[in-house]
Amino acid sequence: MREVSIVGIGQTDVGEHWERSLRDLAVDAMIGAIKDSHAERVDALYVGNMLSGELTAQQHLGALLADWGGLGGAEACKIEAADASGAAAVRQGYLAVASGVHDFIIACGVEKTTDADTETSNAAWSYGTDAEYEGNQGVTMPAMAGLMMRRYMHEYGVAREAFAPFAVIAHANGVNNPHAMYRSPISAEAYARAGMVADPISMFDGAPLCDGAAAVLLCPSDIASRFSEKPVRIRASAAATDRLALHSRNDVLFLQAAFLSAQRAFLQAGIGPGDVQFFELHDAFSILAALSLEACGFAERGKATHLAKGGQFDLHGKMPICTMGGLKARGHPIGASGVYQIVEAAQQLRGEAGANQVEAHLGMTQSLGGTGATAITHILEV
Amino acid sequence: MREVSIVGIGQTDVGEHWERSLRDLAVDAMIGAIKDSHAERVDALYVGNMLSGELTAQQHLGALLADWGGLGGAEACKIEAADASGAAAVRQGYLAVASGVHDFIIACGVEKTTDADTETSNAAWSYGTDAEYEGNQGVTMPAMAGLMMRRYMHEYGVAREAFAPFAVIAHANGVNNPHAMYRSPISAEAYARAGMVADPISMFDGAPLCDGAAAVLLCPSDIASRFSEKPVRIRASAAATDRLALHSRNDVLFLQAAFLSAQRAFLQAGIGPGDVQFFELHDAFSILAALSLEACGFAERGKATHLAKGGQFDLHGKMPICTMGGLKARGHPIGASGVYQIVEAAQQLRGEAGANQVEAHLGMTQSLGGTGATAITHILEV
Repeated sequence: MREVSIVGIGQTDVGEHWERSLRDLAVDAMIGAIKDSHAERVDALYVGNMLSGELTAQQHLGALLADWGGLGGAEACKIEAADASGAAAVRQGYLAVASGVHDFIIACGVEKTTDADTETSNAAWSYGTDAEYEGNQGVTMPAMAGLMMRRYMHEYGVAREAFAPFAVIAHANGVNNPHAMYRSPISAEAYARAGMVADPISMFDGAPLCDGAAAVLLCPSDIASRFSEKPVRIRASAAATDRLALHSRNDVLFLQAAFLSAQRAFLQAGIGPGDVQFFELHDAFSILAALSLEACGFAERGKATHLAKGGQFDLHGKMPICTMGGLKARGHPIGASGVYQIVEAAQQLRGEAGANQVEAHLGMTQSLGGTGATAITHILEV
Repeated sequence: MREVSIVGIGQTDVGEHWERSLRDLAVDAMIGAIKDSHAERVDALYVGNMLSGELTAQQHLGALLADWGGLGGAEACKIEAADASGAAAVRQGYLAVASGVHDFIIACGVEKTTDADTETSNAAWSYGTDAEYEGNQGVTMPAMAGLMMRRYMHEYGVAREAFAPFAVIAHANGVNNPHAMYRSPISAEAYARAGMVADPISMFDGAPLCDGAAAVLLCPSDIASRFSEKPVRIRASAAATDRLALHSRNDVLFLQAAFLSAQRAFLQAGIGPGDVQFFELHDAFSILAALSLEACGFAERGKATHLAKGGQFDLHGKMPICTMGGLKARGHPIGASGVYQIVEAAQQLRGEAGANQVEAHLGMTQSLGGTGATAITHILEV
């Protein structure tokens, strides 16, 4: 099995791209990644996307984007794992290079939600839950997250306001990310006043659905220095699943897949949570941020909000999270978010994070699908 | 890179399963593959599916089926490449085992089209074409195939009736496949009389959309004999793409992706077309069967219908095709078809094809996405 490195990264601005189609966004990110590297060919393309069929009547994105990206016959397919589709595409690309089958692959995450009306996009997003037992009963993603957050508040005796730091940190970090959708800071007071979406989930607990594309170009580590001035090594890549429906889980406050995939990643990298210098986590909802931190061993169970309040996860805290704005402020273009996390981690490790630069040589990303039934973890290092 | 073998196969009947849901079908096929092997664990699941979001409001099939299949936290994701989704899932599973990351994986293809009305299913199927330039203009898959067939008839001076053997062979072979949707033979005369769907595509030129699931269990070849009495070696696995829209191709009568993926597979296996003893091809439309044969080197360009008429591709001809009924008679549960082909090839190589048994130790499968923009080829051997 070969070691794998990132030698190119690309991303579009995240937001509402009314004038651009899915293929435009994806090709921009792909070309960005190619130009950022010195690679002269691409053997395969893995596209992370959740909803192009439902929202734009387009499937077969592998062939479409290999075609429009000018990849000339390259192998290509689409990978779907709900919100974790982008990270799953990076994972499949990693396997293709690790296996020795391909030398240069692109993993591109893309989502275009504004081609459908907001109601359709939001309904389709809930296809990541169990359709027969959850989604078709009318329970949306924010409602599911609301159930989890309410239970957390009940079990651990924390108030809704305790989740404020996750939104405050994300928005503070989004200010200096030129690609972020929201670039205004918010205060804990604004969080406390925020209107309810699905009580106790307020408008500041949920990440916005939007448009965007991000891409990474991978190659074997032993030749990576020829194709990038600062290759980023993938020290670990791991995935796991949990029961899909919330009601099937033994404990809705423990993200089993997040735990398993983090443990597998730590094992592969030969490190522990204490070695992680920053963490791009999946804050599609603030409750998922807290549960992800606890499942990965960055906080004891029930303590994530306390640590957040203490500044642990601030940009210059002990272990920064969402350093470029996270899903909350950078935006959550569903199938693209997992690749954005990895692109942003690479920016940090290459020292290209601008005003948001943290001092780090090792970082971790974790992308969740739906309410956490899929979790994909990567550990990156320079 | 490790060699990979098939140690378990499973399939459901193909047809209209009004009383069963997508998860029921998939889990049946998965359990079939597990029981057929002696494997005691499954490390990862790759699900091939095209339209579960559009037709059943369910995405996130990786986590869903890992959950309902009882795989206990295994890595899982969905792979989509239009009609070739199932073969793409086998390909990703192959990479996962070849890389050394996983020892036991299941690739399961599943589609449930009868949960939506026929018009919706047929429209969604065309999402495998270029939505902006083809699908959204109202051109459906049968209409696209009709354009290709009309051009073939014009260029090579063959009549519509020349395509009859492809349907006749498929239906003849479907008779003895207990899992096939259509088990009645048809005559060349019936083909000639068939009503038009999209002239010159008649009802006997197109495969039926339907429900079904098939699965294979893969492991490294060097331990395969411990997990199956008759492991089937994957001698080659290859994928390629072509321009997505027909109008972008230099020559609509040459399937570039089918050619490239076959060449790559022949190169990997160290063989040529003359070594292939039977070929499970993608006869979603009879024109695609002809073009696939020509792109892979089994017929000169413009000659596939002549060879078919001469009996070359009959069950006991020189190189049988669609030995268990093909997409036309076994049925075309879209994202599952690519796995059915591989399951059926394994049945032949294991000597379990019943009345349809051919004498062979090496066979090839090829699955196409849309009008051929994706092609995935596998060469199997015992």
